Amino acid sequence: MTEVTRTDDSFHVFDTTLRDGAQREGINLTVADKLAIARHLDEFGVGFIEGGWPGANPRDTEFFARAAVELELEHARLVAFGATRRAGGKASEDPQLAALVTSGAPVITLVAKAHDRHVELALRTTLDENLEMVRDSVEFLRSRGRRVFIDCEHFFDGYRANPEYAVSVVRTAHEAGADVVVLCDTNGGMLPGGVREIVAEVLARTGARLGIHAQDDTGCAVANTLAAVDAGATHVQCTANGYGERVGNANLFPVVGALEIKYDRRVLPAGRLAEMTRISHAIAELVNLTPSTHQPYVGFSAFAHKAGLHASAIKVDPDLYQHIDPERVGNTMRMLVSDMAGRASVELKGKELGYDLSSDRDLAGRVVAKVKEQENLGYTYESADASFELLLRDEVRGSRDRFYTLESWRTISEQGPKGFTGNEATVKLWAKGERRIATGEGNGPVNALDQALRAALEGIYPPLATFELVDYKVRILEGQHGTGSKTRVLIESTDGSVTWSTVGVADNVVAASWLALEDAYTYGLIRAGLEPTE
Amino acid sequence: MTEVTRTDDSFHVFDTTLRDGAQREGINLTVADKLAIARHLDEFGVGFIEGGWPGANPRDTEFFARAAVELELEHARLVAFGATRRAGGKASEDPQLAALVTSGAPVITLVAKAHDRHVELALRTTLDENLEMVRDSVEFLRSRGRRVFIDCEHFFDGYRANPEYAVSVVRTAHEAGADVVVLCDTNGGMLPGGVREIVAEVLARTGARLGIHAQDDTGCAVANTLAAVDAGATHVQCTANGYGERVGNANLFPVVGALEIKYDRRVLPAGRLAEMTRISHAIAELVNLTPSTHQPYVGFSAFAHKAGLHASAIKVDPDLYQHIDPERVGNTMRMLVSDMAGRASVELKGKELGYDLSSDRDLAGRVVAKVKEQENLGYTYESADASFELLLRDEVRGSRDRFYTLESWRTISEQGPKGFTGNEATVKLWAKGERRIATGEGNGPVNALDQALRAALEGIYPPLATFELVDYKVRILEGQHGTGSKTRVLIESTDGSVTWSTVGVADNVVAASWLALEDAYTYGLIRAGLEPTE
Repeated sequence: MTEVTRTDDSFHVFDTTLRDGAQREGINLTVADKLAIARHLDEFGVGFIEGGWPGANPRDTEFFARAAVELELEHARLVAFGATRRAGGKASEDPQLAALVTSGAPVITLVAKAHDRHVELALRTTLDENLEMVRDSVEFLRSRGRRVFIDCEHFFDGYRANPEYAVSVVRTAHEAGADVVVLCDTNGGMLPGGVREIVAEVLARTGARLGIHAQDDTGCAVANTLAAVDAGATHVQCTANGYGERVGNANLFPVVGALEIKYDRRVLPAGRLAEMTRISHAIAELVNLTPSTHQPYVGFSAFAHKAGLHASAIKVDPDLYQHIDPERVGNTMRMLVSDMAGRASVELKGKELGYDLSSDRDLAGRVVAKVKEQENLGYTYESADASFELLLRDEVRGSRDRFYTLESWRTISEQGPKGFTGNEATVKLWAKGERRIATGEGNGPVNALDQALRAALEGIYPPLATFELVDYKVRILEGQHGTGSKTRVLIESTDGSVTWSTVGVADNVVAASWLALEDAYTYGLIRAGLEPTE
Repeated sequence: MTEVTRTDDSFHVFDTTLRDGAQREGINLTVADKLAIARHLDEFGVGFIEGGWPGANPRDTEFFARAAVELELEHARLVAFGATRRAGGKASEDPQLAALVTSGAPVITLVAKAHDRHVELALRTTLDENLEMVRDSVEFLRSRGRRVFIDCEHFFDGYRANPEYAVSVVRTAHEAGADVVVLCDTNGGMLPGGVREIVAEVLARTGARLGIHAQDDTGCAVANTLAAVDAGATHVQCTANGYGERVGNANLFPVVGALEIKYDRRVLPAGRLAEMTRISHAIAELVNLTPSTHQPYVGFSAFAHKAGLHASAIKVDPDLYQHIDPERVGNTMRMLVSDMAGRASVELKGKELGYDLSSDRDLAGRVVAKVKEQENLGYTYESADASFELLLRDEVRGSRDRFYTLESWRTISEQGPKGFTGNEATVKLWAKGERRIATGEGNGPVNALDQALRAALEGIYPPLATFELVDYKVRILEGQHGTGSKTRVLIESTDGSVTWSTVGVADNVVAASWLALEDAYTYGLIRAGLEPTE
């Protein structure tokens, strides 16, 4: 473990997952969720964690109250978000600003309007009064010992519409004592060229320390953030996994990945970059969204290689086809076994699973031939590692691993006169010299089959009790032949600590599911340390 | 309907979904899928569709053979992908190049090495021979009347390692007659600043027409593509929804969206931009991936507003919080709280089907409510027009169209001791006052059910004999609950001249298929001019 080194103040990684990220459709965080996410962000090493808007809703108020007691941050400073004071009032008498002070957060981000049209249409006040609101609010919070950052909403559109006014908002905030003025692309419509140009101009005209807050509506939030840094911004506002309203915000992980690796700029404490993949996935779990498999740097597929063309080059030198060593961000290279791949990728995949195929060309050849044969039938092993490993074991051992010998199975699905649908399955098999018959019910034929197989085997193989099916996917192959086509089923199983994936292909969904289930149980029992019996 | 205008050759939108996009983990396309995707891309109006590597695998060879007969492209040119000839051989005798010519594609993209280290390590030949391979291969294909584009693999890393050599590859290709030299960021490690700089330098040094092929490993593929355009590239290689190896490729939709809207540059035929959202989703369905809800421009959430702060401003003026009018790209603004179908889209859809809902606000309201209720259950009507029309007819008529009254159905699937799998279904129903019982067999439970229903009704409703199921898709909803989740089935049927699509959602695949089958038969019989009897 490297020693913790707090990053200095010259560059800010500012996270707003808990405030702006929570605006994403489908995210609904409890206070406990927010505290847990804050701990992950702190562990990752961001400099600032914006926790919410205390006073605006009870949950955010409670978050700051509990954070003051329960949250011990190693690197990050907690930030409360709010708005400039009401038009026509006094900052010192504004209840909203008072709530920010009460929150106890050492840093306050205030949102301010910088687009003349928004001041008039949405805020319904004068341009001068808006400037006064900025000055008064910043000075008030500074007088209460708070560090203040200003988020200039719709800055880029505002600058294009009325550059003098937009710049005057930046100057006012800066002169009033705001440490950073954050230029926000609130509707996310900017492209990097425009961001770079405007940030450079504002920096030259004001001398204020500038930050960037980018939304991803053009798919350029990461690039816009980096463009601002190129132009002199030293404060980047991001969210974990890019969560945020509409399309989302600038994704913290590729922004930090680019700064640390491509810019060679130290923005995290030493040793933390390698935690990126784990922390990205942990936060996804906390917000209850499946981690995006195709996220840059941290996605499950981010270093997965499929093409045979690439695979043979990767065997020569992995750096030929990877922009970075995945271990730098805590990710791993994976070889996908597919019909586009040849011997090279099968050997690499075997190595990943602990089988040395390179020394036995005959064995490797048999495995490649078997994979091709299976792929012709519609199998795919790229998302079914466990089935691939069983195939590999078959070739190595010369026989199929079996824990039972099937006699027959049958499923019945029916709908009666009153619309009730029932499903039942019966499995007959031999295991350890004994004939077993079991029947299961379920909400579908596959579920019933799973219950029946489990009932038939559970007494004999106790580890089965811990197995659970966690994901189930169906794909009809050759979709132009109606219900007469081949069906491929992928099943993901877990024993509570590890998950594994299996595949089955057959004429119909029930038979294909049966095959994937068989592989799932066989692989799980081997993993549990049992010896095949049949 | 606007008239079709073919875009000119001055700027190329080049799509490689079918070749590079197919490298994405989890995508496995049949020839029929590829043909269907090509039709969507052509409808969108891309200039070039790269279909695959004929000769490299049987599927791609078959694709080009069938495309020559079955694919009528309105705008796009079909492109075959291949590699430069073998080291030490002659282009005119190279079987791989011969296969490209045989494919019949009018345009060929050849991948060439431009990074000295890759030439030596992966290609295992000399730098001079690599140049000779480029020259010879381009000249050969030009002599066969083909237009040639060159993909310079790993160009940017190569340029940084050995700029003279990388430039000499561009020059060689250009002088040999390649129309476009595409600079590829193969491992996806570039950022926009570097891309812009290198593209500008190469353009200045060679005068060749340049293209860009960006991978998304830094999360900057769209921005990198636009950076290359800023520097003078006039050919962009993209994939639908950004599908591609590892993290993916530059996403066609935000690239085209930025060029058309932000750059105000005409890169699609008139009127096609508004088809973007629909086509993005249709292609996702074809590759059997859930459309990304948070994709820029076309995502379901791309114009969804949650924040109270924003919502009130949007009421004043939607432009305050949206970077573009979503209708320009065929998307819609959504205020969260509500569900998908708004009255406007239901009215529009009704109009399309010949029902005027705008004059009856009460009816339109009932239809919207019903659609929302069904969507909550997991239904989607985007690709199930026939089921939507039946729903509409129900509300208009106040009762369900029925040609029979179901008593019960049952399916049995079984596998016996010898591995034989049988499927049988029995349907009991009343039609025209008569009780009918019929049993069908099939290669799966759904097929058996289809046969049984057909057998029960065919004597009574002769048009049934012409109906055929041509496509069948299954999607498991809420994939984290194993086989206990909801299942959605989409069925496409035809009577030989028209096709229609229906949907069913239930606890399991058999029950969901039954509902989709019922809709398919009911709709088909109504189309055939029969009056519902029950």
